Amino acid sequence: MDFSSKLLEQAVDQMSQLPGIGKRTALRLVLHLLRQPETQTEQLTKALSKLKAEIKRCRNCYNISDTELCDICANPSRQEDLVCVVEDIRDVMAIENTGQYRGMYHVLGGKISPMDGIGPSQLTIKPLIKKVKDGKIQEIIFALSSTMEGDTTNFYIYKQLEGTGIKTSTIARGISVGDELEYADEVTLGRSITNRVPFENSLKS
Amino acid sequence: MDFSSKLLEQAVDQMSQLPGIGKRTALRLVLHLLRQPETQTEQLTKALSKLKAEIKRCRNCYNISDTELCDICANPSRQEDLVCVVEDIRDVMAIENTGQYRGMYHVLGGKISPMDGIGPSQLTIKPLIKKVKDGKIQEIIFALSSTMEGDTTNFYIYKQLEGTGIKTSTIARGISVGDELEYADEVTLGRSITNRVPFENSLKS
Repeated sequence: MDFSSKLLEQAVDQMSQLPGIGKRTALRLVLHLLRQPETQTEQLTKALSKLKAEIKRCRNCYNISDTELCDICANPSRQEDLVCVVEDIRDVMAIENTGQYRGMYHVLGGKISPMDGIGPSQLTIKPLIKKVKDGKIQEIIFALSSTMEGDTTNFYIYKQLEGTGIKTSTIARGISVGDELEYADEVTLGRSITNRVPFENSLKS
Repeated sequence: MDFSSKLLEQAVDQMSQLPGIGKRTALRLVLHLLRQPETQTEQLTKALSKLKAEIKRCRNCYNISDTELCDICANPSRQEDLVCVVEDIRDVMAIENTGQYRGMYHVLGGKISPMDGIGPSQLTIKPLIKKVKDGKIQEIIFALSSTMEGDTTNFYIYKQLEGTGIKTSTIARGISVGDELEYADEVTLGRSITNRVPFENSLKS
């Protein structure tokens, strides 16, 4: 694209670095900001700079947090010895939204993915193992997405935990509530039959 | 969405003010920035602030420009008395990319749209009329999108120009080059038949 304005070009270039934002979309966004009052650009840039400068990782669960210890870890009414292992804050938010979970989290910060150059050492696996070995955890629930990378990560952690005698589980895979069987993929349907649950369980919620 | 982090929430709120960016997408973008080195956020915020603070409107054509007079208006080899009326810089870029136009532009900055509260006074229609009355222009080409708003704006300007004896034209509407007739909408196909051109013209380019 030929912009005829260096300032515009730089702004569009930077905006199009964001995932899923191409040059055209970036131009649309930047032109929108130009049409708005200056305060909007100011507030956006301030919020981003402030976030990047001041955000912390919770020292217990490694979730994004404004404070040293996040709200969930600091909450005394949560069940401390039950830990759900997730990839990032979006998964924490999704599980919290269900209102069905009262344990703690451990945020890995990603999944093992050799293709993207992410090994176990870049994730917060060591602190998790340490917490287990310190005897603070009774049960770990693996809640990573069920992809190749997710399964690899689960298995890696599972292997590291061998000999600790800790209870491990994964979230149930199956047909979504309200979904038609005929449209479900075979792997999911297969797993939902293998891991069938007593009928009485389905009456509970 | 419950973020558990005020900093994150503010950043996502600001990001989701951009057109076509919902809360979920905003969260994805902000988390991406968090994973990247600090320089990326810095460069993005700097480019946006700088753009907003330093960008100018060309004093002749009102296009976005780094300088008082934009590159196109400052170019002595362009045909000064031919002016193409467009909505914003994206249209200028699109027409420039064709390499078929050597005249000048006049950027309106929008279209008359009572629904969005945009009247003629918010657009750069007055300076255009002034340029015409000063006798600087021989022909005006209307190149607004052919929507209700675009047609209204064209007609408003056309009415204002009455009595000046200036030549006006609009860009041709018709079937896109390479398109199948059967998939064209009726209005476009209808116009392309009404405004048919001598066959010899189609051999030129």
